[in-house]
Amino acid sequence: MKIDVLTLFPAMFTGPLTESIIKRAVDKGLVEISLHNIRDYAVDRHRTADDTPYGGGAGMVMKVEPLTACLEAVLEANPRGRVILTTPRGKQFNQGMAEELAREEGLVIICGRYEGVDERVRELFGADEISLGDFVLTGGEIAAMAVTDAVTRLIPGVLGSAESAAADSFSDGLLEYPHYTRPPEFRGLSVPEVLLSGNHREIDRWRRCQSLERTLRERPDLLATARLTDADRRCLRELGEDDGQ
Amino acid sequence: MKIDVLTLFPAMFTGPLTESIIKRAVDKGLVEISLHNIRDYAVDRHRTADDTPYGGGAGMVMKVEPLTACLEAVLEANPRGRVILTTPRGKQFNQGMAEELAREEGLVIICGRYEGVDERVRELFGADEISLGDFVLTGGEIAAMAVTDAVTRLIPGVLGSAESAAADSFSDGLLEYPHYTRPPEFRGLSVPEVLLSGNHREIDRWRRCQSLERTLRERPDLLATARLTDADRRCLRELGEDDGQ
Repeated sequence: MKIDVLTLFPAMFTGPLTESIIKRAVDKGLVEISLHNIRDYAVDRHRTADDTPYGGGAGMVMKVEPLTACLEAVLEANPRGRVILTTPRGKQFNQGMAEELAREEGLVIICGRYEGVDERVRELFGADEISLGDFVLTGGEIAAMAVTDAVTRLIPGVLGSAESAAADSFSDGLLEYPHYTRPPEFRGLSVPEVLLSGNHREIDRWRRCQSLERTLRERPDLLATARLTDADRRCLRELGEDDGQ
Repeated sequence: MKIDVLTLFPAMFTGPLTESIIKRAVDKGLVEISLHNIRDYAVDRHRTADDTPYGGGAGMVMKVEPLTACLEAVLEANPRGRVILTTPRGKQFNQGMAEELAREEGLVIICGRYEGVDERVRELFGADEISLGDFVLTGGEIAAMAVTDAVTRLIPGVLGSAESAAADSFSDGLLEYPHYTRPPEFRGLSVPEVLLSGNHREIDRWRRCQSLERTLRERPDLLATARLTDADRRCLRELGEDDGQ
């Protein structure tokens, strides 16, 4: 997988791409990540990459020419790269999109700045617009990091088998159950008995019920689409909140 | 505002915190951001910060003792800091939460790792659990960056007045209208006439209609809570989708 990131602030990526799992994936040759400074493709003396918006208003707009020149250079080396623009105007990123993007041969991520990118970039390159969520960031760089991280860890071989298994527990659409590790008691707080019982059926049941309870409390919207078993429905009924679905 | 970040990977923050608006806010003394390596608070010879989960299963769990020691040291210097844990189990971050957090005197952000943090940390410190969205990241570091960025830019004085005004255009709950800047024509694509007209009433109307159209297409869920005027409803009716709200 080849991931190209087009940004006005390449230095922002120093830490995130050189640590942890992304670094390991790069070292293993499973993913190749390249940063491109859009400003390098501006041809005027001041390397202007943004300008005031037509029609007036606050903020600056990223210009179409330098971005087009940068994109064309990048797409020459990553011709099947899917073009993505990170912007609060986009579709909300989720695990399904991460899985879809992880199956691409390449990604070309343009980091939008909040005020916006000249609309013609999207018209010319058919960029998919992706948003991290309903909040405003200074720019699309942190969103690009999140997309890169979420996608990279899904590329086969990046995670060890233990880590993959852990990731799978999210894909059932419920929030995670609580975790405990040693010591068994800390400042008067004990690990729940069941986790020390060695009875794996009981442990699984307890964890599943904790997941359901937590999801019901914090993110009831997820229950509508989660894959629920009969036992899950019994557990929800016991929690007094089964809505008969 | 004092923001403390507790992480196992402090080097990940090198770029994000030393560029762009966050750097400017730090330089102006409007925000003070400190990174703390949780591993420095582990007392054993190997500086163990994680361990296998009670009850079995994949992945590792962040241990309660080093995190407690780190938190207590940090809270001594940031006693009114609100404790946050970034985790996919948390409430989904949004602009309302960013605004709420920006009014705090301090924040103490614990970067969870996906497999989890010993539940007793939450019980002892009442940490608010925050998730960026329904996707899995390698760890909570990128989420912590997003929260830090979204909050910092809301602190009075961080953004210039022009930037603030631009940000406000999000708070009406609709997606942004398309932006254009020079040149007026590029590869056969022209800037919409109205934006060159100088008629600001017409420009405002066009932009608002574009926002509504885009929101209707990409994020119809937002229309339910957006503040709509009579003119907006007329525009939506013209788009053939007014649902009588």
